[in-house]
Amino acid sequence: MPVSAQSLIAQLAAAPGPDVAATDAANDRNGQLTKPPGALGRLEALAVWYAGWQGNPRPQINRPQALVFAGNHGVAAQGVSAFPPEVTAQMVANFSAGGAAINQLCALAGADLSVHAITLDQPTADFTQGAAMSEAVFDAALGTGWDAVDPTADLLITGEMGIGNTTAAAALAFALFGGDPADWTGRGTGVDDAGLDAKTRAVAAGLAANPTASADPMTALRCVGGLELAAMAGAIARARCLGIPVILDGFICTASAAVLAQAVPGALDHAVAGHVSAEQAHAALLHRLGKVPLLSLDLRLGEGTGAALAIQILKGAIACHSGMATFAEAGVAAG
Amino acid sequence: MPVSAQSLIAQLAAAPGPDVAATDAANDRNGQLTKPPGALGRLEALAVWYAGWQGNPRPQINRPQALVFAGNHGVAAQGVSAFPPEVTAQMVANFSAGGAAINQLCALAGADLSVHAITLDQPTADFTQGAAMSEAVFDAALGTGWDAVDPTADLLITGEMGIGNTTAAAALAFALFGGDPADWTGRGTGVDDAGLDAKTRAVAAGLAANPTASADPMTALRCVGGLELAAMAGAIARARCLGIPVILDGFICTASAAVLAQAVPGALDHAVAGHVSAEQAHAALLHRLGKVPLLSLDLRLGEGTGAALAIQILKGAIACHSGMATFAEAGVAAG
Repeated sequence: MPVSAQSLIAQLAAAPGPDVAATDAANDRNGQLTKPPGALGRLEALAVWYAGWQGNPRPQINRPQALVFAGNHGVAAQGVSAFPPEVTAQMVANFSAGGAAINQLCALAGADLSVHAITLDQPTADFTQGAAMSEAVFDAALGTGWDAVDPTADLLITGEMGIGNTTAAAALAFALFGGDPADWTGRGTGVDDAGLDAKTRAVAAGLAANPTASADPMTALRCVGGLELAAMAGAIARARCLGIPVILDGFICTASAAVLAQAVPGALDHAVAGHVSAEQAHAALLHRLGKVPLLSLDLRLGEGTGAALAIQILKGAIACHSGMATFAEAGVAAG
Repeated sequence: MPVSAQSLIAQLAAAPGPDVAATDAANDRNGQLTKPPGALGRLEALAVWYAGWQGNPRPQINRPQALVFAGNHGVAAQGVSAFPPEVTAQMVANFSAGGAAINQLCALAGADLSVHAITLDQPTADFTQGAAMSEAVFDAALGTGWDAVDPTADLLITGEMGIGNTTAAAALAFALFGGDPADWTGRGTGVDDAGLDAKTRAVAAGLAANPTASADPMTALRCVGGLELAAMAGAIARARCLGIPVILDGFICTASAAVLAQAVPGALDHAVAGHVSAEQAHAALLHRLGKVPLLSLDLRLGEGTGAALAIQILKGAIACHSGMATFAEAGVAAG
């Protein structure tokens, strides 16, 4: 059955949480490993969190999946990007040929990457003039993400490509969390001052043209989001329903994920923040979601690159947790 | 010929820098890759730095080496650790059996790990009573590190194990940089308030008992350092002479490395900071060295664990730099 905004939210609300027994057993194991208590810092909680979602006190990561969604944006007509819309399709071709940053980082992490270009020749409507997507188009984009998740994956990252999509993400964050439009806009992949002003004006105009967007998170995603943002939300929601842990990427991915958290409390319990990007509003957005990023390396590329890099941190945490000897096994005094 | 403190410094002072032509070519390549300028953040400078040291504008990491040195400390008699000195040998056995955190992280990073226990049954002298090491013992420990470096390695990390060694590192940092003893002491792998007070008193007493330590970095390392700290300094110096890039680990590793930087300007140009640890003085020490850490995950285990985790970040940087398509190759508009 095709997913709709309504059925997605219903399934998300009914989705089970992590395995409590596995979480408890993982915590017990963590306390017995040959290290002083807490000496592995954030890696310890990360491993226990993952153990709970995998339902295994000694988990492994064997099948990470990376999904990159691409879409074009009517709002690009407002002069909000340093790049022309043709670059979206050019970069999709680059992904397919293996030439982009995300290809290299997925290969390194052993992640299975697939790229889903969503009607690049049919951009969303310019949201400064009305809703970016009809309900039918929105549901189809959600479904693209929902259906793309491999139920046998044991970790998911989602990334995006779409000229103009930091503006859509900013409008979405503004609709979800309020404040001023300028709180949520930034330089994206490199706009100048005039471009930044144009983004901020577009965000304000977007909410003025879509007065219902602030009232409901999924409506906000439909009205001022984008095809690839909807697909990321669909994929992250599906992962939650399947109990697959997620590493969030940058500002645009996080804005998409925030829709779910605002719609259903606990919807992102299966997700950690892979990194905080150089896009200025990302830190604020993560703070609103209560997520502390694993990495802070000034990335601002999108594509899922920050999340792909963070897979290695999670793998390190799991390798220690599941591979280390206990004090009893090693004959080490526990202090 | 065995290395001595004197010959090590002479070789370090004469060591060549990175390959300027390779650095320039790597910078050129970075500007042509299919991403907006700067969008990979710190990964970009990291890749260019590594390219210079490898002398290859499109470098690879194929042979990372991890060296863990273990030593015991006479100053442990001052009640500065939560663990008894026997734990050093127990953990060395755990390293050999593959059960420690560093084993798991090296396996994940593809790093060749070897562990060098330095006369665990002969700890250094208690430096609150005089010099920790004679010149002969010191030179031998430097030589253990110097000789342990594989000249065919293309990346080095050094780690340590030694009950009491955060106190030695604190005394070393105090000798090198001054300030107050309490500026450099912390809770190590878990001392209580009384233990922290004992550490601070030991640091003050160490410098009082070794008045020449503040005058010369290598003298400081001999008088208030330790066997594994000397070995790490020897290994990091040898890597500099061989042109092998280094990722620094935590507070103790960084204090050892700081000796070289204070003795010979530029001695750590081949080194990046893998992480900033939870040991409170580590951030200050990195700041003194002008090193910005790649990771900040509250690790405080030592063993080289933070550096081993950071290998993955460097590998990610190199994978992107050397594997991505250029705008021309991919037919992507450069904006």
